[in-house]
Amino acid sequence: MKAVVLHAPHDLRFDDIAPAPAPGPGEVQIAVSHGGICGSDLHYYHHGGFGTVRVREPMALGHEVSGTITALGAGVTGLTEGDLVAVNPSRPCGHCDYCRKGLAHHCLDMRFNGSAMRFPHEQGLFRAAVTLPAAQAVRLPAGTDLALAAMSEPLAVCLHAVAGAGSLIGRRVLVSGCGPIGCLTILAARAAGAEEIIATDIAAPALAGARAVGADTVLDLAGDADALAPYAEAKGQIDVAFECSGAPPAILAALKVLRPQGLLVAVGLGPEVTLPVTALVAREIRMQGSFRFDAEFATAARAIASGRIDVSPLLTRVLPVAEATDAFDLASDKSRAMKVQIAFPSP
Amino acid sequence: MKAVVLHAPHDLRFDDIAPAPAPGPGEVQIAVSHGGICGSDLHYYHHGGFGTVRVREPMALGHEVSGTITALGAGVTGLTEGDLVAVNPSRPCGHCDYCRKGLAHHCLDMRFNGSAMRFPHEQGLFRAAVTLPAAQAVRLPAGTDLALAAMSEPLAVCLHAVAGAGSLIGRRVLVSGCGPIGCLTILAARAAGAEEIIATDIAAPALAGARAVGADTVLDLAGDADALAPYAEAKGQIDVAFECSGAPPAILAALKVLRPQGLLVAVGLGPEVTLPVTALVAREIRMQGSFRFDAEFATAARAIASGRIDVSPLLTRVLPVAEATDAFDLASDKSRAMKVQIAFPSP
Amino acid sequence: MKAVVLHAPHDLRFDDIAPAPAPGPGEVQIAVSHGGICGSDLHYYHHGGFGTVRVREPMALGHEVSGTITALGAGVTGLTEGDLVAVNPSRPCGHCDYCRKGLAHHCLDMRFNGSAMRFPHEQGLFRAAVTLPAAQAVRLPAGTDLALAAMSEPLAVCLHAVAGAGSLIGRRVLVSGCGPIGCLTILAARAAGAEEIIATDIAAPALAGARAVGADTVLDLAGDADALAPYAEAKGQIDVAFECSGAPPAILAALKVLRPQGLLVAVGLGPEVTLPVTALVAREIRMQGSFRFDAEFATAARAIASGRIDVSPLLTRVLPVAEATDAFDLASDKSRAMKVQIAFPSP
Amino acid sequence: MKAVVLHAPHDLRFDDIAPAPAPGPGEVQIAVSHGGICGSDLHYYHHGGFGTVRVREPMALGHEVSGTITALGAGVTGLTEGDLVAVNPSRPCGHCDYCRKGLAHHCLDMRFNGSAMRFPHEQGLFRAAVTLPAAQAVRLPAGTDLALAAMSEPLAVCLHAVAGAGSLIGRRVLVSGCGPIGCLTILAARAAGAEEIIATDIAAPALAGARAVGADTVLDLAGDADALAPYAEAKGQIDVAFECSGAPPAILAALKVLRPQGLLVAVGLGPEVTLPVTALVAREIRMQGSFRFDAEFATAARAIASGRIDVSPLLTRVLPVAEATDAFDLASDKSRAMKVQIAFPSP
Repeated sequence: MKAVVLHAPHDLRFDDIAPAPAPGPGEVQIAVSHGGICGSDLHYYHHGGFGTVRVREPMALGHEVSGTITALGAGVTGLTEGDLVAVNPSRPCGHCDYCRKGLAHHCLDMRFNGSAMRFPHEQGLFRAAVTLPAAQAVRLPAGTDLALAAMSEPLAVCLHAVAGAGSLIGRRVLVSGCGPIGCLTILAARAAGAEEIIATDIAAPALAGARAVGADTVLDLAGDADALAPYAEAKGQIDVAFECSGAPPAILAALKVLRPQGLLVAVGLGPEVTLPVTALVAREIRMQGSFRFDAEFATAARAIASGRIDVSPLLTRVLPVAEATDAFDLASDKSRAMKVQIAFPSP
Repeated sequence: MKAVVLHAPHDLRFDDIAPAPAPGPGEVQIAVSHGGICGSDLHYYHHGGFGTVRVREPMALGHEVSGTITALGAGVTGLTEGDLVAVNPSRPCGHCDYCRKGLAHHCLDMRFNGSAMRFPHEQGLFRAAVTLPAAQAVRLPAGTDLALAAMSEPLAVCLHAVAGAGSLIGRRVLVSGCGPIGCLTILAARAAGAEEIIATDIAAPALAGARAVGADTVLDLAGDADALAPYAEAKGQIDVAFECSGAPPAILAALKVLRPQGLLVAVGLGPEVTLPVTALVAREIRMQGSFRFDAEFATAARAIASGRIDVSPLLTRVLPVAEATDAFDLASDKSRAMKVQIAFPSP
Repeated sequence: MKAVVLHAPHDLRFDDIAPAPAPGPGEVQIAVSHGGICGSDLHYYHHGGFGTVRVREPMALGHEVSGTITALGAGVTGLTEGDLVAVNPSRPCGHCDYCRKGLAHHCLDMRFNGSAMRFPHEQGLFRAAVTLPAAQAVRLPAGTDLALAAMSEPLAVCLHAVAGAGSLIGRRVLVSGCGPIGCLTILAARAAGAEEIIATDIAAPALAGARAVGADTVLDLAGDADALAPYAEAKGQIDVAFECSGAPPAILAALKVLRPQGLLVAVGLGPEVTLPVTALVAREIRMQGSFRFDAEFATAARAIASGRIDVSPLLTRVLPVAEATDAFDLASDKSRAMKVQIAFPSP
Repeated sequence: MKAVVLHAPHDLRFDDIAPAPAPGPGEVQIAVSHGGICGSDLHYYHHGGFGTVRVREPMALGHEVSGTITALGAGVTGLTEGDLVAVNPSRPCGHCDYCRKGLAHHCLDMRFNGSAMRFPHEQGLFRAAVTLPAAQAVRLPAGTDLALAAMSEPLAVCLHAVAGAGSLIGRRVLVSGCGPIGCLTILAARAAGAEEIIATDIAAPALAGARAVGADTVLDLAGDADALAPYAEAKGQIDVAFECSGAPPAILAALKVLRPQGLLVAVGLGPEVTLPVTALVAREIRMQGSFRFDAEFATAARAIASGRIDVSPLLTRVLPVAEATDAFDLASDKSRAMKVQIAFPSP
């Protein structure tokens, strides 16, 4: 069967690989339909990894996929052949201290599809078929758009970030960085009751994306670096900032406009940032990192399936899997693309 | 009457100033007894200010004092002549948005004794007598040690930091930086139920202070920069870190040992610090600044008066006010001093 | 000018009263447009009060109104003649301990329009014109439907209840009692991201209302008293219950289906209820009362004006103010009415 | 070997039972030293159970014990023969939803020593020796007083209740019901930083116990049913109430004195209570049940061992295990006893 396999930076191949094994007890086999290309996939594609994490053997990429159940192992309940599913790429061990404390996303022995963190690598999901524990498959109603459903994973990241900020009713929210994660955060914050959402970026397509998903105010910091200045008045006017760019200037800009005891949720990964400790202390700013998701995956899949969260404005284009390299190149071009997906042919 | 007045860097004078006015309605007059020298007093003394805040007219220093009520204005209840009091140097406006939201310590029009932030400056409390709104005087039981009571203000800072961390029952706590604020934080964290307290510093007197106030483990990072390494295992072993040094290496060290979703409370003011955003995000670290205090001032005064929190190990020496310059020089020498106070002669 | 004034139980008159005074400094005059009839208005109408609170002098009823600014006192900013507004009936004193702690809705000296709690009574808002502090008027965009805007007050009650429950992302929510407050709570919980909403009542129009505002599951407990039983499995399946009926059986039913550490928010006022303490303790159930609102009033007005929360399914009928008695009788008939309003003629 | 076994109400025998089995992998054998008699033991003794939970086969009682490790199964680390230990009677399954959410004390398949909830019953710990998973043994320093250590379990209950109330710094706390659980709650609340503790009861020994453990104010509600009235002023003066009696009048009294948004933590089990819903709603009172403990067991054992929490004032008397019936009778007499223990002879 076919898979999108990275052999080396810029060496992405549409390989034949061994077929997915028959599902064992508690497992399901899924024919993969759509797969979204994420920033970390692009990192592998362009640089072969990040930091100390490097691709050291051929690795299928991808961790944002949807598909159809094609076979069930013994003892699987709640799923049937033919069911549409969104695939959760996280597989926590279930036994470590964090798994037992309700913090499975900090599992000491996490497996995450399409990650070179472990060796042998945890293979990604851009494969024609995958066999996985049934717990990784979230059932979707018949008729769900599988392209949209393949955005469950990044939406889950954003719902996790938003849930960590507490009630947003009546809150004025800043979202900095309006790529796919930023735009999905705008959708998630709105779905959680945010009263006013201000979005910032420096790239035109991102700003257009923020407008498309309903930000109340969209500020182009490339055009006017001081566009946020009015929000810094009276010690700060923003209740919660979701920092989705990972860019140091964006983090600093967000800190300046948070009100005393305001919260910055750091979602975007990025380089080091130099922070003014005194300003943080004097305004009692709160910062918290938000990483991946846990139960929010199923919430995201259901919110997409029900139409309660409409992620369609973010889908730039779906290319056939055989054109995966073109898809990766398009996804890499921030002036043209938000979310790019590959699609496997129907089985 | 006499006061300790700064005229310029290193020009601290024991001046004659106009006597404190008779108390108006709602005010009290207090004969000042003891006054503790704080880091910000030392900043004014050595550098004439910090950042853009500069002493531009003669300013009495001091904001950690205790004394005795000598006169009462009309309408003051709950206080009598002869009452011992701890003096709260904060005077929020009571009207602004923050005052109405229960965040009076973020008042947009705060007056704080001994601060050059406003002009004319808000005069400090190292004066033989002060006349203030009665709300700034917290009554102490007869017989309270006024030297210890003059530590209410810095203890309030630490109680505020600790209260912001939620319940500490069963928590393993790190306190980095063991000057007076760090040591008072150790006392406050213990009083709040912390199960295990690890303290770090690089100076011998600070480490001795941490031991004296009951830290369970005291680590000299000057002797062994990696002394905290065991606490970094399994993604981190510390639940809550109180960072009291403001030193960038200490902040970074604290972040490394916090468990996922652990909390760093930044109490110490300091220069900029360069943080690894990815590490913060991936372990979902929480940081929050803690600034001054609000209702915790009265709590601190009462905890000292009742003996529930014993701050006596931190009192290095009390000098007569006429030797204020010597007192400031001693307080400036971290190899010899924790908290140094001046004492006015009994009236 | 005209007003809807209660003289005694069932003696509601369309009286001529003295015209609203010219607005003083900081005040505005508002021509009232629409007014919603609330449960407490009906209590006054039928019973002359509740508990020890009795109408002891003629009192205009009403506290859910919208209107148009007709005159401005000195110093009012942010409002102009002709502005459409929703009127907040709360006037906290601004000085007491609760007002200073950010808990103005627990003000020790609260004035609330249309309440007989104080004497002289705080007159209600069913008056052709009212003169009030500008802070009670929330500006609405031109073109806002003033009938819908007059639902800002009850929606604020519900947003306050929902905000107190923390993030609802991924939560399964029960709403018991689907009169206007229950239905507005369904809308508020959905706007705050609730994943699944189960609504219960025993009256057909209420159940229809719950369906109209989008509850996922609507259960008629009159038809099947055990309809909630499946949600009691495995110690309880409901994360948060909003109890809007005040009816003891509904409170008990909600407690049975909450998961361990689940939260019951009590919104509905009602008689005494007999609770099983052991069950509460053993499942560590949390209960919290929710009363009125604070900043949520403006949030509610803006959510209605923007269309983000569509309250129109709840508006049964608008009657001319001259037919106020008919309006009160219709509003009293739960088999026919959800929210009934009176409308003053355009000025 | 010997054990204290209940055969029927008031039929408590000092039986010979089969020796404890050799420890299997991961298990330890413990020679039991001291065992405290708890209210639930007394319920079994006097009534053969409570509610639908009835003793249906001979059951050793007891779940508050300390002892000495006498043998170790394969693979046990961190414990050695001769170690003193406090024994945690909880054994959650580790697999159910609650165990995975960090709520192991709500385990769907909990085993708890000395409970007739399951059948066959989970035998109690009043046995000369017990063999248990090593995770149930918390190591104590050599020299720890094993009588005091046997109070780890009830202290854990109280630390859990107190930890659930958030930071107590500066808080005025009410503890109603001053039997062993109430008095341990006073100790726990003080250890967590409560500023002022008011304790109430109607029995002289309980009131004496409250004084002995350091309550600031001890009120005899038998002598003056209105003794709490001053705390009801200005909508309530108490921040947090720990209700340890389970008695309906005590719950009602606590609700009356809580300030708006104050918290009642229900610890005591009891009959039904009739609550005024309107009062709960109007003051936005929070209530939460607190049940057993989780990680707090080890915290309690260490706090006792280190002397940080001194439980000795509560220990009425230790009787030899052969006099277990006398011990149960003494423990049943609230006019004479707080905590009564039995002691096994040294092995």
